[in-house]
Amino acid sequence: MELLYILLVVLAVTRLCGELAERLGQAALLGEIVGGIALGIVIHQTSARFTALGEATDSEAFTAITDLAIFFLMLLAGIELKPRQLAEASRKAVLIALGGFLVPLGAGFGLAWIFLPASELKTAQSLFVATALAITAIPVAVKILMDLGQLDSKVGNLIVSAALFDDVFSLILLAVLLGVVSTGTIPSAGQLLAILGNVAIFFAVTFAIGMFLIPRVAHLVMKTRSAEFEFSAILLYALAYSYFAEFMGLHFILGAFVAGMFFNRTTVDPKIFDGISSKLSGVTSGFLAPIFFASIGMHLQIVALAEIPLFVILLVIVAAAGKFVGAGLPAYWLGADRRDAAAIGVAMSARGAVELVIADIALRAGVFSQPDPPPPIVANLFSAVVIVAVATTLVAPLALRRLLPERSDGAEKTDAEQRN
Amino acid sequence: MELLYILLVVLAVTRLCGELAERLGQAALLGEIVGGIALGIVIHQTSARFTALGEATDSEAFTAITDLAIFFLMLLAGIELKPRQLAEASRKAVLIALGGFLVPLGAGFGLAWIFLPASELKTAQSLFVATALAITAIPVAVKILMDLGQLDSKVGNLIVSAALFDDVFSLILLAVLLGVVSTGTIPSAGQLLAILGNVAIFFAVTFAIGMFLIPRVAHLVMKTRSAEFEFSAILLYALAYSYFAEFMGLHFILGAFVAGMFFNRTTVDPKIFDGISSKLSGVTSGFLAPIFFASIGMHLQIVALAEIPLFVILLVIVAAAGKFVGAGLPAYWLGADRRDAAAIGVAMSARGAVELVIADIALRAGVFSQPDPPPPIVANLFSAVVIVAVATTLVAPLALRRLLPERSDGAEKTDAEQRN
Repeated sequence: MELLYILLVVLAVTRLCGELAERLGQAALLGEIVGGIALGIVIHQTSARFTALGEATDSEAFTAITDLAIFFLMLLAGIELKPRQLAEASRKAVLIALGGFLVPLGAGFGLAWIFLPASELKTAQSLFVATALAITAIPVAVKILMDLGQLDSKVGNLIVSAALFDDVFSLILLAVLLGVVSTGTIPSAGQLLAILGNVAIFFAVTFAIGMFLIPRVAHLVMKTRSAEFEFSAILLYALAYSYFAEFMGLHFILGAFVAGMFFNRTTVDPKIFDGISSKLSGVTSGFLAPIFFASIGMHLQIVALAEIPLFVILLVIVAAAGKFVGAGLPAYWLGADRRDAAAIGVAMSARGAVELVIADIALRAGVFSQPDPPPPIVANLFSAVVIVAVATTLVAPLALRRLLPERSDGAEKTDAEQRN
Repeated sequence: MELLYILLVVLAVTRLCGELAERLGQAALLGEIVGGIALGIVIHQTSARFTALGEATDSEAFTAITDLAIFFLMLLAGIELKPRQLAEASRKAVLIALGGFLVPLGAGFGLAWIFLPASELKTAQSLFVATALAITAIPVAVKILMDLGQLDSKVGNLIVSAALFDDVFSLILLAVLLGVVSTGTIPSAGQLLAILGNVAIFFAVTFAIGMFLIPRVAHLVMKTRSAEFEFSAILLYALAYSYFAEFMGLHFILGAFVAGMFFNRTTVDPKIFDGISSKLSGVTSGFLAPIFFASIGMHLQIVALAEIPLFVILLVIVAAAGKFVGAGLPAYWLGADRRDAAAIGVAMSARGAVELVIADIALRAGVFSQPDPPPPIVANLFSAVVIVAVATTLVAPLALRRLLPERSDGAEKTDAEQRN
């Protein structure tokens, strides 16, 4: 029952803040995170009055809810994108993704390496900062483009394809990062090869099953008689891929994401597909995701900005500039005009969802536990990365609205409406 | 991550067993419970091999999932029924419900009082058995009638209305039961009056808000811009009612149920209503409910039948006969022909969902902890009640299929299809 009380408070605050953000022309996501931050401050400042709330956010039950949220979020992100988009993505998108991945990766690693103190986990911490900066938030990018009616434009297509490649690179890097966390050192060539081998096996198996087996199984599933069996089937499929990913030493979010990628309008009857998408969208955007974003916000201590101001400011600059240059410059070289190249660079810099997922994983894996006791820069590293996510997610839609003309007026609800 | 593994195994087993049950002409629910029982046996027999699975089902995280399941299940049950049905329900339905409630209540209490040993909790235990026997499972009754195409027939209407009154009586009784559990004795006249006063306040406030405030708020909610806000709004509404119910000393399932009752096609745009219903149905029937039913099955030790065979057999007979006579006889007196009266008596005897919810609440509240150590009849009381639920849910659709002519061929998926 205590859980229901927490869910009531957290969901109410985040959704109202999200709606307020939408009204102010921002992504709802941003409001949800800010709502979580506000809740975190209230809980920490007045812990006597909100003991139950404070304790509950550290409880196993609340963690179960946020785990589920991450699972649904990645599954839905996978469904939003199709393998065909990967295949059709031109050489351009790969190069843009590579630039937008490597530049902030290198810059982030360098910055962290200079600032962080020596410890067993210094490599893991630097790699964490690098990964967090290298990522692009597909859901955020898609959402922003959708709001501007630019999702199916030439620039929009390029952004989504590049963001997709970027995320696949980042999730592979996450596997390396998790390896580093468990061993404390950069993997040897042999270990790296083993990780890449596991990644290859994972993709070979999941792609083979996704392409050849899933369409056949889907036809069987459509013949079932029990209510909502299709919805269970997609969850089981994603849960199985998630388990397989963990089994191969990767993170479960990769499994949920890949499972989503192979579930599309051609896999099942389009009407059933729309129904399932709509249900996943409801439980994710309407229930679990806001609670997850709030929980991230609740972990944030804004004091990071006061404790390590120089590092935080540099990190935000490197994050934004790294993507802007890393993705924008290849786009310009490949023939995009200045305005479009700038739009691509800005859109790729939104981090939001996926970076927060990775920050959360790193926090739980104990990346910030060394040296012991952690100096301010390590103690505030998590919060610094969350500040980066919030800052870049705030800037991207603001800047894009100036760079790209809005093609249809305010289509915020299209996602939900198309599916209902 | 361990949670995802548990969800994978439990969901796979229950849904496959549920589908098998449908194919064998039974309710999917039945297969889900039987699947849970089978899982429970495998876990307990081979605990060395399935340690993670065994431990996880006792974990706080798994309990959080089943709590959520109960919440969604009751909300959905409430949505399936409308206050108008309550208002339109004739004198007949109230009298049938009263008979079908009081006869098994009295018989169950008497049987338990004779068999159970003296202890501080004897009253609570007897009242628990009585409540479990008095309840009617609305979702099960609705599902069976739907499958037979009899939901909107005269008999079907009478059954659903009577089942609704029956459940309201039972949930009030549950409040008394929870009071008895916390004090150990039958409440005094003053305490009973206080409980009834709380019940009255709860219904007055929730009905007033549901009738006058909710339609206005719904119009505001429909003007929101963030995706899936309507879905969040119905959850927040139900969470608030659940919290209020607990605050008034009632159980949260009553809050979720009443919240559902006031949410209907006239509250919001019918298209939005259908979308929300479809999403709630997906996450409930396709995800959480099977896990909850399985968890109940996993708690069952079938040895109850071997340890206290006489009591279990008598309990099943009293449960079935109590409803058959208690609801069927008033129906017959009120003018139904023999066949229809029998159908009403049989349909009301299906317990399934709601009885299992109550058994679970009693288990968690520690009703079976006295005397210490508990003798076989107390140790197996929970399992005995689960056996009753399984047995009556098994018999009802079998018997109804003979008593009522099937009006449309196999409409098992109508629920999901209508809404997609």
